[in-house]
Amino acid sequence: MWRGENTQKGRYREFVQCDFDTIGTKSVVADIETALVIHDLLIALGCEAFKIHINNRKILTGLLSSLGIEDKTVPILRCLDKLSKVSREKVAEEMLTIDGIGKEAVTSLLAFTEIKGTSEEVLKEARGLVTDNTTFSSGIGELSELIHGLTVAGVPDSKVHLDLSIARGLDYYTGNIFETFLDALPEIGSVCSGGRYDHLAETYTKTELPGVGASLGLDRLLAAMQEIGVLDNRSLGAEIFIVYFDPERRDDYLQMARTLRSAGLRVEMYVEPKKIGQQLKYANRRGHRFALIAGSEELDQDLCQIKDLGTGNAEPISLKGGYEDLVVALKQKLAD
Amino acid sequence: MWRGENTQKGRYREFVQCDFDTIGTKSVVADIETALVIHDLLIALGCEAFKIHINNRKILTGLLSSLGIEDKTVPILRCLDKLSKVSREKVAEEMLTIDGIGKEAVTSLLAFTEIKGTSEEVLKEARGLVTDNTTFSSGIGELSELIHGLTVAGVPDSKVHLDLSIARGLDYYTGNIFETFLDALPEIGSVCSGGRYDHLAETYTKTELPGVGASLGLDRLLAAMQEIGVLDNRSLGAEIFIVYFDPERRDDYLQMARTLRSAGLRVEMYVEPKKIGQQLKYANRRGHRFALIAGSEELDQDLCQIKDLGTGNAEPISLKGGYEDLVVALKQKLAD
Repeated sequence: MWRGENTQKGRYREFVQCDFDTIGTKSVVADIETALVIHDLLIALGCEAFKIHINNRKILTGLLSSLGIEDKTVPILRCLDKLSKVSREKVAEEMLTIDGIGKEAVTSLLAFTEIKGTSEEVLKEARGLVTDNTTFSSGIGELSELIHGLTVAGVPDSKVHLDLSIARGLDYYTGNIFETFLDALPEIGSVCSGGRYDHLAETYTKTELPGVGASLGLDRLLAAMQEIGVLDNRSLGAEIFIVYFDPERRDDYLQMARTLRSAGLRVEMYVEPKKIGQQLKYANRRGHRFALIAGSEELDQDLCQIKDLGTGNAEPISLKGGYEDLVVALKQKLAD
Repeated sequence: MWRGENTQKGRYREFVQCDFDTIGTKSVVADIETALVIHDLLIALGCEAFKIHINNRKILTGLLSSLGIEDKTVPILRCLDKLSKVSREKVAEEMLTIDGIGKEAVTSLLAFTEIKGTSEEVLKEARGLVTDNTTFSSGIGELSELIHGLTVAGVPDSKVHLDLSIARGLDYYTGNIFETFLDALPEIGSVCSGGRYDHLAETYTKTELPGVGASLGLDRLLAAMQEIGVLDNRSLGAEIFIVYFDPERRDDYLQMARTLRSAGLRVEMYVEPKKIGQQLKYANRRGHRFALIAGSEELDQDLCQIKDLGTGNAEPISLKGGYEDLVVALKQKLAD
């Protein structure tokens, strides 16, 4: 994806989104599954501490309608979407610049987005605020069903946060919406967002194609995980080190390396015939587990030493008939 | 990476290169290992039919020196690099525009790049052409050692092609160079190229840092594999399908789906309580292997039917005490 707006920390010009969507159904089961994917995905990626913020577009739309300002939905949503980024006052100020929006409406809207508590408490308090609007009631209903489904499916309450302040700027959302914040780094923004968009496809086709889905912001999540320190640097180094001992026997070492690699072992062969002590020092520094040492004398007798770089112990292995015994011995030692 | 030149098929504006380099040694073992990585990498990625074209920069440099035109090395290499893309005549024409290059030199150079045969034959014929230049002899020697090492390590001769016509435009190469062409689609260009660059780092540091390495052109290789038809489209669909049978028992289905997924099974739950026949038709089309069917009647008795979508056979499983028996039964059936 490419960003048209200004870039900043966690908001790159070019970024990778991983999308998952269910198209063709209005069933709340698809909303529940979307939230389950967000939840399981983040856990699978190694993020344990996050919250999925959920809201429903119809609640805001219904509220605006009951305030008589439903024709201002798009600019108001754009303002509310900034609540997590700029101050309440800035948002209020910007809302007042919208033609036809008075102080009373702004106060109602902001108060509404500030309802706090458990999901049950927020739903109850919100439900009482607007009683004469069916869009509003549908939104509350869909949100309740979503929360209920997540609870039933075993998602801990601590991972779900009913947040009436999130709106998502994109005006194609029509129902439940999702944003996901990392507990340790909320300021980087939502790492996985989405929602229901029942009319989006109508721009392109006359077929009714309701949908719901979300996107993982991969680069942002990786940057955040790196900053939090939950991203492991993994090194898959070679377990076996072949000492390039005798310049005359380079072909033997090359064959040995290739045969062991074909057997699935990770092997590094030293590239220059330096002193054996220097090579073993290098091998210890690099963390190889076993060194194979064989000079002309050993090779003439079809022998090779396996040196355990941890204990320092060495053991001779026969190379009679090829490298089969060596492979077996090394696999055994690596498994121990 | 970003490309400054014009884009074309397989030559994208933005592309991903996977680099592997050995820095700090002039040993030919590192050259051999580089070619081994190219070979094993392409095989591991599912490309069986390819050829690693190899050459050595010193051979050309030595030839130019023996022709008395070593100061024209860079423009001549740039011309020769086009041999696989444009006609021999075009290349000859372009070479003649280089100041100080006569017809005789062009004829010698082109004749030289057209020496053909097995690696042994090419080396022998080339060796005879220039006998009074040490750079030339070093190049021939390094190339022989590389080929010998690859043979010893068990790379089939058919995968290695000594090609005196490849030059690689980049003038930082100093020794052995590599290009890799797919047998089925050579015209897409080299998918893995590189070589030895013993003086490149000297632009930035006074430490001597000889190096050798290559890069896999990932996007180009993927595009080529797709075109050749060796890139599998893999679908990791859900094995288990949960029929959303009874609207009253949605919570049970959600719990069942989540429990089975936690046990490592891939599960899809139908999103709407449609007719069972319609759902099973969908499941058959999607290739699920087993459908779980449980209405209120079954669930009240702690029962669930496992229907094998291949054979059509159904078997009841007890849900007494949870989903443990169901998980065991499904894993058993999937393993059969």
